[in-house]
Amino acid sequence: MVAPADPPVHAVRGAVAVALAEDLTPLGDLSSALLPTGASAVADFVPRVDGVLAGTLCASETFAQLDAAVDVSWAASDGDRVTAGSVIGTVSGAMASILTGERTALNFLCHLSGVATLTRRFVDAAAEGGQARIWDTRKTTPGLRSLQKAAVRAGGAVNHRGNLSDWVMLKDNHLALLGIEEAVASARATWPGRLVHVEATTLDELRQALDAGADAVLLDNMTPEQAKEAVGEADAWAASSGRPRPLLECSGGITLDTAAAYSATGVDLLSTSQITQSAPALDIGLDIRT
Amino acid sequence: MVAPADPPVHAVRGAVAVALAEDLTPLGDLSSALLPTGASAVADFVPRVDGVLAGTLCASETFAQLDAAVDVSWAASDGDRVTAGSVIGTVSGAMASILTGERTALNFLCHLSGVATLTRRFVDAAAEGGQARIWDTRKTTPGLRSLQKAAVRAGGAVNHRGNLSDWVMLKDNHLALLGIEEAVASARATWPGRLVHVEATTLDELRQALDAGADAVLLDNMTPEQAKEAVGEADAWAASSGRPRPLLECSGGITLDTAAAYSATGVDLLSTSQITQSAPALDIGLDIRT
Amino acid sequence: MVAPADPPVHAVRGAVAVALAEDLTPLGDLSSALLPTGASAVADFVPRVDGVLAGTLCASETFAQLDAAVDVSWAASDGDRVTAGSVIGTVSGAMASILTGERTALNFLCHLSGVATLTRRFVDAAAEGGQARIWDTRKTTPGLRSLQKAAVRAGGAVNHRGNLSDWVMLKDNHLALLGIEEAVASARATWPGRLVHVEATTLDELRQALDAGADAVLLDNMTPEQAKEAVGEADAWAASSGRPRPLLECSGGITLDTAAAYSATGVDLLSTSQITQSAPALDIGLDIRT
Amino acid sequence: MVAPADPPVHAVRGAVAVALAEDLTPLGDLSSALLPTGASAVADFVPRVDGVLAGTLCASETFAQLDAAVDVSWAASDGDRVTAGSVIGTVSGAMASILTGERTALNFLCHLSGVATLTRRFVDAAAEGGQARIWDTRKTTPGLRSLQKAAVRAGGAVNHRGNLSDWVMLKDNHLALLGIEEAVASARATWPGRLVHVEATTLDELRQALDAGADAVLLDNMTPEQAKEAVGEADAWAASSGRPRPLLECSGGITLDTAAAYSATGVDLLSTSQITQSAPALDIGLDIRT
Amino acid sequence: MVAPADPPVHAVRGAVAVALAEDLTPLGDLSSALLPTGASAVADFVPRVDGVLAGTLCASETFAQLDAAVDVSWAASDGDRVTAGSVIGTVSGAMASILTGERTALNFLCHLSGVATLTRRFVDAAAEGGQARIWDTRKTTPGLRSLQKAAVRAGGAVNHRGNLSDWVMLKDNHLALLGIEEAVASARATWPGRLVHVEATTLDELRQALDAGADAVLLDNMTPEQAKEAVGEADAWAASSGRPRPLLECSGGITLDTAAAYSATGVDLLSTSQITQSAPALDIGLDIRT
Amino acid sequence: MVAPADPPVHAVRGAVAVALAEDLTPLGDLSSALLPTGASAVADFVPRVDGVLAGTLCASETFAQLDAAVDVSWAASDGDRVTAGSVIGTVSGAMASILTGERTALNFLCHLSGVATLTRRFVDAAAEGGQARIWDTRKTTPGLRSLQKAAVRAGGAVNHRGNLSDWVMLKDNHLALLGIEEAVASARATWPGRLVHVEATTLDELRQALDAGADAVLLDNMTPEQAKEAVGEADAWAASSGRPRPLLECSGGITLDTAAAYSATGVDLLSTSQITQSAPALDIGLDIRT
Repeated sequence: MVAPADPPVHAVRGAVAVALAEDLTPLGDLSSALLPTGASAVADFVPRVDGVLAGTLCASETFAQLDAAVDVSWAASDGDRVTAGSVIGTVSGAMASILTGERTALNFLCHLSGVATLTRRFVDAAAEGGQARIWDTRKTTPGLRSLQKAAVRAGGAVNHRGNLSDWVMLKDNHLALLGIEEAVASARATWPGRLVHVEATTLDELRQALDAGADAVLLDNMTPEQAKEAVGEADAWAASSGRPRPLLECSGGITLDTAAAYSATGVDLLSTSQITQSAPALDIGLDIRT
Repeated sequence: MVAPADPPVHAVRGAVAVALAEDLTPLGDLSSALLPTGASAVADFVPRVDGVLAGTLCASETFAQLDAAVDVSWAASDGDRVTAGSVIGTVSGAMASILTGERTALNFLCHLSGVATLTRRFVDAAAEGGQARIWDTRKTTPGLRSLQKAAVRAGGAVNHRGNLSDWVMLKDNHLALLGIEEAVASARATWPGRLVHVEATTLDELRQALDAGADAVLLDNMTPEQAKEAVGEADAWAASSGRPRPLLECSGGITLDTAAAYSATGVDLLSTSQITQSAPALDIGLDIRT
Repeated sequence: MVAPADPPVHAVRGAVAVALAEDLTPLGDLSSALLPTGASAVADFVPRVDGVLAGTLCASETFAQLDAAVDVSWAASDGDRVTAGSVIGTVSGAMASILTGERTALNFLCHLSGVATLTRRFVDAAAEGGQARIWDTRKTTPGLRSLQKAAVRAGGAVNHRGNLSDWVMLKDNHLALLGIEEAVASARATWPGRLVHVEATTLDELRQALDAGADAVLLDNMTPEQAKEAVGEADAWAASSGRPRPLLECSGGITLDTAAAYSATGVDLLSTSQITQSAPALDIGLDIRT
Repeated sequence: MVAPADPPVHAVRGAVAVALAEDLTPLGDLSSALLPTGASAVADFVPRVDGVLAGTLCASETFAQLDAAVDVSWAASDGDRVTAGSVIGTVSGAMASILTGERTALNFLCHLSGVATLTRRFVDAAAEGGQARIWDTRKTTPGLRSLQKAAVRAGGAVNHRGNLSDWVMLKDNHLALLGIEEAVASARATWPGRLVHVEATTLDELRQALDAGADAVLLDNMTPEQAKEAVGEADAWAASSGRPRPLLECSGGITLDTAAAYSATGVDLLSTSQITQSAPALDIGLDIRT
Repeated sequence: MVAPADPPVHAVRGAVAVALAEDLTPLGDLSSALLPTGASAVADFVPRVDGVLAGTLCASETFAQLDAAVDVSWAASDGDRVTAGSVIGTVSGAMASILTGERTALNFLCHLSGVATLTRRFVDAAAEGGQARIWDTRKTTPGLRSLQKAAVRAGGAVNHRGNLSDWVMLKDNHLALLGIEEAVASARATWPGRLVHVEATTLDELRQALDAGADAVLLDNMTPEQAKEAVGEADAWAASSGRPRPLLECSGGITLDTAAAYSATGVDLLSTSQITQSAPALDIGLDIRT
Repeated sequence: MVAPADPPVHAVRGAVAVALAEDLTPLGDLSSALLPTGASAVADFVPRVDGVLAGTLCASETFAQLDAAVDVSWAASDGDRVTAGSVIGTVSGAMASILTGERTALNFLCHLSGVATLTRRFVDAAAEGGQARIWDTRKTTPGLRSLQKAAVRAGGAVNHRGNLSDWVMLKDNHLALLGIEEAVASARATWPGRLVHVEATTLDELRQALDAGADAVLLDNMTPEQAKEAVGEADAWAASSGRPRPLLECSGGITLDTAAAYSATGVDLLSTSQITQSAPALDIGLDIRT
């Protein structure tokens, strides 16, 4: 079985270190300092609502950095659907360490599961209409790019460009300065092996992008009807030219309500910033067993 | 006039450095590298919807770290209400630098303005019902604590504990181990000068907290009716004891719909994680002037 | 039993990493490189004079970062009184690792135990005169704030503000610009739940601070006689107003010689920068067993 | 004229960044946030007692990192003797920035000037007795090695090893394992061009060190009389062998009271940890002009 | 004109900070400290041999971090051919700062110009035989990935994968576990929009890769004759299938002597680790004008 | 037996963290993410050519940071001669982790073994002619100073100055400003215990350096004949003055071809930048066992 990738370990380690520093500088946890030093506890991660899990590596790393003697185990994995009230993971160790790490661990878990959960809703919505995949964007929360993109994968969607260094996207401002044909040729020559991705807002621009040899075309702010027409145009171009149809992406206007309609147009990918920029946290608690 | 504080400058600097590294590692912006080297541009930050602005320091810092020759100026300040279509700031300099920094600057601006905007809605909603202030929580996005809390202030609300080192909060797990009276006394002795904040889920626990001398009481998951009764109880305690009423906070169940009702109960503070954990980004664009 | 908090673990880890880098860049320990590679040793931490121990986490972390195979154990804990010549801890492992880490571990241990030891002397001196607690200040050694404040707790004293983000202190310069009444009101409104701490240099200023509703008043550079008069004034105010007396702090002129006299005045807290800024190191050695 | 070196700029920059982070995390300066935003000020650094100045680069860097619009100028330089009540430097700019940076800047200035001042007292004391120079040690405050060693130079003394990577010191534990002759030969072969420094506690060990060809000998814990005898021994060895006398260092027992006597023995260097580990802060204030 | 990209600015800043720290910890430049403080100088960067320039941003940044008052200007740009004895850049400012920064600036300049120079030789050699471009690899010097890849572009070659996050490469070990068809399909499904790059060591494997729909095929360790045969095979496949020929890369055995022959085979790209892993430094000096 | 030192552990840890970040930002290893999650492997480090090993600590640390469950063991140590085709180390664990870490581990291993191998060739060449040791320089690859200098030791050579903070080198520019006699005296006074190293380009300058009391003289760009004459001059000076001959270093023109001739002149040290700046990588592979 092929599994989506976890976030890279250095990104987990770095984000957790930053999060602990912001929660503990300068004096540490004043409240835990009052607890009897020998007190230990067992606590369960329990979602309050249904959702899709992500961020378990961050939650584990939080306790690992705080207190190596705390044990964290998981009954569910990133990408699993979890249900309200179920135990999805368990922490055991010193009560003071558990209470100190609780909020940081949950901040990761709730945020990233929120991303995965909303992503999954988009994925399911798109599947109602057709085969289009949900694509994320670079509209992510600063400092959490790697973690959010992993949560998107956990939610069943796929990753667009990881960053500006991944591939070439030629948007309106690039094209205005360079012209589409020269822009694509220059991209191809300067960065061989990279996807050359061109923005088109009209069928005419789409045709230019096709002729210029773009590997992917972003259909910008089109209605489902316009997008369907664009797909037809691209299919016709492919048939007549004998070249494969580039990837077609719809961007702008993709919502839970419209995803099925866009998916039905025959485009390959539907991109949305909502899943990384505007996903509400998934409510997960850490319940101390008593 | 007294203004809410900006985020601390070291937090701005650090968050921007991390964000640029995640967007530019390892090769930089492949697409901007194709542009004519002499090309320059002027571009305007323009909200697509109405909202409250936050994050201008981060947006400015993004360009400062990328290219010191880029000039950024603002027509609005953090905390200002901004309207769809208006120019709220302007960037001028090398086209390549502007396009490279655009997304990072906007990621900060849209996220933090989203926080400020939702906060403002809560503030306004609470004002409909009474005098209660909106309080944030430690349920923030990892790595952005300082910036989100500043955005909360920009939205007109106030900051709860900045972190675990700020003051003492005695929640159910602390109280179960220590007993409320001993817990408050211990907090007072160990951390003099710090607020001692006690969680209460019932009127009986409230009374214990009052008698123990808590400076603030978190009324946990109470309905507005229960909260109102709690306020009455606390007022009666204050009148009979001659001591000032502690700060009363409602936590749990505070939404845009319920904020007025909770505010009307007479409590001092309404805390909500929604403003930092679940605020949708405010849609702001950077429009290149042509 | 309630114990004072250890320093936060991220602060220990960070400070040790910096200290090792400054002692080992660029070539490492030239002298240990000459040793036979198989040589191992057991070495004891032994104070040369009596004192109070602090910094054991830093000393342990030093060896953990250098060589995970070195074992460190402690016969005493932070806050314990230790006596000249006794074995307070033991290190065993590779001779080269022990000699390389010796100075860094001792630099932490001697400095922080020096802080704890002087603090304890102040605490004991104050106890001769009354109930006043010793409070530290923000006059700490740059980079060691968290560790020194933990050492202060180990010495039996309590922590004043951890940093500028903790609570509001209104000193002469703030008050000159704002006026005391507006300053306190503004602090209360802007930062609810935070201690509002006001500086007063005269009885008249004290009265203004009381009337303005300060939570704590710093009596600046008063003699014990003046401080006693101030206490009387505050007690009278409390009696007549029915409100609790704010915390009263004496600052300026607190020495080992005067601490008892100030403590006898009835103030709550005596703050001194000497314990963090001017504490001589406690002489502790690491004796290789032969 | 040849001046002592300033601390390396990267060390200044790094130490200041750490110090600001520990004073401002997570919310910044709560109190300065209350000030009128337009308020500006001019403030003077004024020593309360006589001393020797050090740390001006750190104080300047503090304000540079906080607010580039704050101007800092100095009327005295590191190494200058300064007198109580004189203006040694001036800061001008936004009142909020000045108050926020005040304590961090002063923490560097007071600590490092304290080091320079005590160092100067040792230097002057040694000069009463002879030509011996005062040498610092690796017994420094963790994280401040570079800055303290620069302050030692500002105080007129000289720097011993900067760290373990500088040169070879063969102490009792090395010698016990290797034998003095083999140890020196091995050091010479492994690290050519480095000083080979040998510890000797007796005249017999001194003679062995001389015969082994040590470049410097640490006379450990000798009285002035013993040290004088050792000097005689080394001089006789030099005369008879025709080789130059190694550097002779006295270590252990060097105080302000004994420095002259040790200096009179004819040794080259007197090392003391007191100047870096136990120097009280020099009291310097920042006075806002009114 | 389209220019190759500079290295990302955060990579320059970070690498220079690390390099200065390793050259100046803990005491700074002992030798420059001896210079008269007022001495200033003008110095020229002068290559001792002909070559291609790279690394000017790093050299400028070195002095910027050391001393903002030092001025650095360039008479040549990254990618320019420079000749022995010519002045390619000039530094002016304090003599002490120039001598302190000299080696760090030159270490970047000589190393990166060495990379650019050897790259240019490969590019020129390949151009003798055909149209194949020179491609770098991930076999770079740790910590210098971004800078070396920019130097490769300065030398006229193009960048292969920047890192493991760029695109999918399916090598023998992946293929053995997954099978080529499933591997390509899985890559396509998991990472849409990414190049899928497949290793082939035989014509048979090449055919499988073509049929599986690889975007690029690495011809591993083939002789020019074998590579030519592979090109023929791929061309035939493209003609018969009507699909575009994937990018063909030769890897293994590409040297200055063989580059023309490989280029003549008709493949698109010749990759070599030699340009980043084994490029000798270009000898450039900094000559103080006298 | 006395062994050359390993690189300092903090330098290994830091360099590996940087290298992994540059290879895995932002999405991690796209290709390994396709592998079956349970797949494990055993893989051997095998040199393709003969050489001298260095960098094993870095290779181990790479896997330790990526996946603590991967086991790395070594059949050879830094400094050992290794032969083409032999197994020098073995990695076992998750296939995905091994493939993700492979290139980073090898980049360290190949680069540092390349340095050690070329160093050993210089050492052997010099030994053909005489007793001179090979000395490295500060002409190292930025960020890898500590690791390269350790690899030099693994290759059998010795380390010159680690950095600018180690000892005093007075080159032409220093001497022009200060005069040789004053320069040496100033160095001696300012930095007692440090080697004072003087550059000489002529016999006359050598004589001045000898008379000024230099501890070491760099004979700059002399032919072997000139160097031999210089040695004679220095020997004569030593005989007539009764003082020990300073260390004599030849710098400039030392190649594998000339090393024996320079070694035969009787100088102590031959310095070359080639071993750190221009050493080709040693080709080592990681072979998965099948």
